[in-house]
Amino acid sequence: MTYCVGIQVDEGLVLASDTRTSASFDDVRVYAKTHRFVFPGDRCLALMSAGNLGTTQAVLSRLQRDLDENAAVSLRTPRRLFEVAEYIGSQLVAAQAQVNRGGRQAPVNVESTMILAGQIAGERPGLLLIYPLGNVIAASPETPYLQIGESKYGKPILDRIIRPSTSLNDAARCALVSLDSTIRSNVSVGLPIDLTLIRSDALQLAESCRLDEYSPVYQGIRDSWADQLAAAMSRLPTFPWEASRLADSGLWQQAAAQQQ
Amino acid sequence: MTYCVGIQVDEGLVLASDTRTSASFDDVRVYAKTHRFVFPGDRCLALMSAGNLGTTQAVLSRLQRDLDENAAVSLRTPRRLFEVAEYIGSQLVAAQAQVNRGGRQAPVNVESTMILAGQIAGERPGLLLIYPLGNVIAASPETPYLQIGESKYGKPILDRIIRPSTSLNDAARCALVSLDSTIRSNVSVGLPIDLTLIRSDALQLAESCRLDEYSPVYQGIRDSWADQLAAAMSRLPTFPWEASRLADSGLWQQAAAQQQ
Repeated sequence: MTYCVGIQVDEGLVLASDTRTSASFDDVRVYAKTHRFVFPGDRCLALMSAGNLGTTQAVLSRLQRDLDENAAVSLRTPRRLFEVAEYIGSQLVAAQAQVNRGGRQAPVNVESTMILAGQIAGERPGLLLIYPLGNVIAASPETPYLQIGESKYGKPILDRIIRPSTSLNDAARCALVSLDSTIRSNVSVGLPIDLTLIRSDALQLAESCRLDEYSPVYQGIRDSWADQLAAAMSRLPTFPWEASRLADSGLWQQAAAQQQ
Repeated sequence: MTYCVGIQVDEGLVLASDTRTSASFDDVRVYAKTHRFVFPGDRCLALMSAGNLGTTQAVLSRLQRDLDENAAVSLRTPRRLFEVAEYIGSQLVAAQAQVNRGGRQAPVNVESTMILAGQIAGERPGLLLIYPLGNVIAASPETPYLQIGESKYGKPILDRIIRPSTSLNDAARCALVSLDSTIRSNVSVGLPIDLTLIRSDALQLAESCRLDEYSPVYQGIRDSWADQLAAAMSRLPTFPWEASRLADSGLWQQAAAQQQ
């Protein structure tokens, strides 16, 4: 499996993806799922993928070929981000169709789903989800993040924290917590994490790094979050039935002190 | 959908379930998913269900019939909890088979999955998951909780917090947080929540209550958790690139103060 999350806040865009690819439990590999295409001053794009690795790589090869050969349409030609997304969608549909060519039904699911984030000069930044059918939906102020892959474990913290006014670095920290929660709860999502920050109107990458279990940045956030969650749990209000029970056992004052 | 979680700690058992049943988006109802069967001093059982409501009610009707008619096997007869689970499993298989009787294929999934928690005099408390096939798995010290239904949103907090040494009331608070996170992120799981606490060797219910959005207990835990998560997020370590950026903009001391 895979887990990728893209976040759009007023300050810019955050992308975070894991790197675990598994064809089966005994065929697990590491592959980057974030791919960056930067043309400084003109456009800054980042693409994340979930689903069939062969399909994803076929799409990436087609995108690179069109760039190299200065094709009539490539990542560099559209003036609007949604047209870039539709171009990627058309390559995605073509790559999936190729596997089924000749009427053979593929015995596995060959679909991929992608998230495109970035900005083209003259436009505001954008965050778009590209479905296997090639159709596209955008993030919005009410829905400021998009996820693909194993998305449920890491969704609650995004729902609680992410707003358009969230700072870019706070959004990045929240994305890492969302990845960390998923990695802890699902063995099909794994380290290292690729993290990308794109600041609005910079038209280049602000930050781009890979974080593994030994990265001080990731260690610090992971350990601080774990410690703070445990502390928060211990500070939740007591139940009505606890007061009497603790009073009975002479522990009431101690519990009251913990409530401070 | 449904979300139910059962937790087994040294002090006893916690069960928490939502009450939203949906046949479709425009057919949403409220049904209890926790059913308690208490024979004080002999056995204390609680059963939670996810899946097809017709199947669940058929099973409950069969369990009650066997109790009322003093059948050879009922919830009251086995001396071991796993035999109670296997009895329930056999009724579950029978209820599912009845729908498909006559060779008609049901156009909807008629399967249910259940969690049985409780204790029989002479045994230790137990927590068991009953699959649609009637087979059963138990919780263990390494896997001290079981979930059915929409389980992924609420799993990370259980993985982080629940250990056999967790107190019964802390486990109940964690179960409510797990439900709250799921309810916030998935519209198919909804209030009110049924909460059940069974203390080891009491052979009766310790607490049993229904919590809705107006319950002070639920409000307190929900609001305190939301506030503490936001505070925890704001206290996470900064990224290396933030120090220089903030120093450049004269905000470094302010950020350093927030780190205290």
